[in-house]
Amino acid sequence: MGRTRTEQLAARFASRIRDHLLPAGTRLPSVRQCAQQQGVSPSTVVSAYDQLQAQGLIEARPHRGFFVREVVARRLQGEAHPAPVPFRAAPADAAPGPAEGVRDERSAAAAAMRNAPSAASLMRGMFNPISDKPQPAMGMLPSAWLQTDFLAAAVRKAATQLHEVTAFYGDARGDAQLREVLAMRLQATQVPAQAHQVITTAGATQALDIIARTLLRPGDSVMVESPGWSVEFARLQALGLRMLPVPRGPEGPDLAVMARYCEAHAGTPQAPRLFISVSVLHNPTGYCLSPASAHRLLQLAHAHDFYIAEDDTYQHLAPEHMLRLSALDGLQRCIYVSGFSKILAPGWRIGYLAAPERWLEPLLDTKLLASLTAPALLERALAHCIEHGQLRRHALRVQAQLDAARSRSVRLARQAGARFVAEPAGLFGWVDTGVDTERLAQVLLDDGYLLAAGALFDPERAPSTCMRINFASTQTPEFWRAYERARERV
Amino acid sequence: MGRTRTEQLAARFASRIRDHLLPAGTRLPSVRQCAQQQGVSPSTVVSAYDQLQAQGLIEARPHRGFFVREVVARRLQGEAHPAPVPFRAAPADAAPGPAEGVRDERSAAAAAMRNAPSAASLMRGMFNPISDKPQPAMGMLPSAWLQTDFLAAAVRKAATQLHEVTAFYGDARGDAQLREVLAMRLQATQVPAQAHQVITTAGATQALDIIARTLLRPGDSVMVESPGWSVEFARLQALGLRMLPVPRGPEGPDLAVMARYCEAHAGTPQAPRLFISVSVLHNPTGYCLSPASAHRLLQLAHAHDFYIAEDDTYQHLAPEHMLRLSALDGLQRCIYVSGFSKILAPGWRIGYLAAPERWLEPLLDTKLLASLTAPALLERALAHCIEHGQLRRHALRVQAQLDAARSRSVRLARQAGARFVAEPAGLFGWVDTGVDTERLAQVLLDDGYLLAAGALFDPERAPSTCMRINFASTQTPEFWRAYERARERV
Repeated sequence: MGRTRTEQLAARFASRIRDHLLPAGTRLPSVRQCAQQQGVSPSTVVSAYDQLQAQGLIEARPHRGFFVREVVARRLQGEAHPAPVPFRAAPADAAPGPAEGVRDERSAAAAAMRNAPSAASLMRGMFNPISDKPQPAMGMLPSAWLQTDFLAAAVRKAATQLHEVTAFYGDARGDAQLREVLAMRLQATQVPAQAHQVITTAGATQALDIIARTLLRPGDSVMVESPGWSVEFARLQALGLRMLPVPRGPEGPDLAVMARYCEAHAGTPQAPRLFISVSVLHNPTGYCLSPASAHRLLQLAHAHDFYIAEDDTYQHLAPEHMLRLSALDGLQRCIYVSGFSKILAPGWRIGYLAAPERWLEPLLDTKLLASLTAPALLERALAHCIEHGQLRRHALRVQAQLDAARSRSVRLARQAGARFVAEPAGLFGWVDTGVDTERLAQVLLDDGYLLAAGALFDPERAPSTCMRINFASTQTPEFWRAYERARERV
Repeated sequence: MGRTRTEQLAARFASRIRDHLLPAGTRLPSVRQCAQQQGVSPSTVVSAYDQLQAQGLIEARPHRGFFVREVVARRLQGEAHPAPVPFRAAPADAAPGPAEGVRDERSAAAAAMRNAPSAASLMRGMFNPISDKPQPAMGMLPSAWLQTDFLAAAVRKAATQLHEVTAFYGDARGDAQLREVLAMRLQATQVPAQAHQVITTAGATQALDIIARTLLRPGDSVMVESPGWSVEFARLQALGLRMLPVPRGPEGPDLAVMARYCEAHAGTPQAPRLFISVSVLHNPTGYCLSPASAHRLLQLAHAHDFYIAEDDTYQHLAPEHMLRLSALDGLQRCIYVSGFSKILAPGWRIGYLAAPERWLEPLLDTKLLASLTAPALLERALAHCIEHGQLRRHALRVQAQLDAARSRSVRLARQAGARFVAEPAGLFGWVDTGVDTERLAQVLLDDGYLLAAGALFDPERAPSTCMRINFASTQTPEFWRAYERARERV
């Protein structure tokens, strides 16, 4: 190509930054590390970093190293407007003075505000394939597993009713037939939802967005799980909310920490009003809430008057008998959320929530203002698939496939020296690598692998030696060989 | 039924309040008026109003009469939580002191905050048919007009590619094929959008929501048209934004008023950052922005550094040559919004926006956080319909039908003594009745007609003698006879 090694190296970093594979705030390897990893001289690295700085892509922070610059700030260079951070978080200083003994919590929340990863960097990875290899960071099942015939048939069937289904605004809550079917399914898992309590949404994503917009106002406090799902953090941050991280353990969230948050702010506007939890097959650990923890969590919610959004995104990968918080609660303090993107197809975009009576109308208002309704044709088609048991049989097949993949993946991971922090279950493994996983991720990019570094799952984005793996995409020895090589180079 | 006349009257009002046909804040007829309208004695009305008060549905305001209570407040009676108004508006008092000469504007904005109609009351009407009669308040075309064969065929065709289209997250911006087609259509109307500048959304509704969430923060000021679309007002209010009403005339918005808003707040956080405008076939008047107004509006936007969301919802009902603001602007300060719910089917839910380069990434982030993507299958199907000219031919047929309906409707309206404030065009007529249209609406409810009273289109919800009619549903003499009868009873 005639390009110098410096130019090649700078170009490689630049394209990764532009593709959001190196998100804003990421620390680049030190000059020495980078030279070693890339097999170039330190002076080449110094020149490449200089070029990236000149392009405004990275910045040097004294005594700390080189960091990818904030995308938003870069994009708006030279613009008159203030940075268009959507719903910029209320500055932590604006909050009332800290109650006794919660200084740590306040600084944690402030750090979370400052450092929560930007939506861009987290989600674009899903849309920008970096290679043909199976990606350990993948958040879904391999598309080959989702190959079904029944969906297309259901769509064709629904299309015969197309005019009837779509030519009216229909039911604001969503297709009545689908909501009936969903209510029956919920009842089968002991969640006592009636059809009128079910509201369909554009995927579980929109359901969570609607809940946050309805129950919370900018500046409000919301408790989140740590580790937890980074896109949820980004959404809450964009809404100007104050995240309070709650450690998530094998049995459930750390209730003592939650109680401290609640007590410290009792009676003030800063009292947490919502806790967002993936109760079953928690992302990224795979933990399932124990009945005893669930019971105590609900008692706490009652005592301190907060609500719980139970995100059951991985519903179809879990055994049906697994206890849901909303079942124990009788749908009084919980808003249940689930969807079908994980089990049917990501592009299908049907989710739903089931809520206590008192929240139905406000939630529905938010849905109407945000997007009116969801596409009725697809809702009707999905209702067919559920009614005829096709979804259930498909889910059982996928579960069996996933069990086999998990066995293989766990064996290979252990052979490669990785340690499972949580007992492997569901789609994701939470693995301790013993090295900083953001660095590891950068090295593995060179091999064409996208890694989900632990920092992405931390509300404060703290560096971590853990990473999340997708069992379905880490069941071949190739990845683990690359992992071992990379680990030595970090 | 054995129910007394009092009970019957109270029950009728109660069900209308519950169905949101009498929105919160509506003033009920005076006792004397109501007695006259309903053919009952004043004491019956007094007793019925007493019952409604006891049920918490209405309230008496001294010297002003009886008003429907705030739905939210009612719903939460006895709840410990503060009212869950989503993103409650920043109190007007919190804003910096008024600049010289803008006291009126500030009180107008404060009034808008207090009185903007709730989302519930406005949108539920679309979902709660009150009778089998064609409804003058209807916001869409009659479903019979939307009967097409090509949609179902396109869906069946797309279903053959279902796995390919839906088994991946695909392109975050939306189906690539659809965006290509939309960009070509935009270019045909002189809007210089490239495919990468087009982002699909869940209807134009979500596009407008995404724009407000991305460009504005709670407490920010946004200029809106008056009269204008009440659901837009409700959305902005729910996002905690400060609405500044701009009178809309036949040529365009009142630029002098806009200039005053901008000058009064120049350099402060209250400076308006966005103007939302239905430029072509404005709702409710049918006005189309003149080229000279468009030019001066863009100059103003440039001088005062605000953006414009051009809502072209009625695109398919307008002649193609009609000048779009985004065309004149070259998509520099305008974000163009349109959708297909009006011309294809309300339940179809595909809309899009086309934005200047600098806003693409922030807008896409908001879309991803709000709902990830939109259903790819329907996007692909729509692309087929547009590519094969089916949508265009359908739109021409609908336009011809609408032209005929408008002629009939206008003739009947004039015979009934109604005066068109704006030259009839498009789907809606803006009609001066000479009487208070909220009262008129209440009387016509008894005849099974839902009327769109002028107050619904006023950001401050001021009483109005105007109403919006849908030309497609007011072309029979029956409605106008009922109108004339009702007008005499108001």
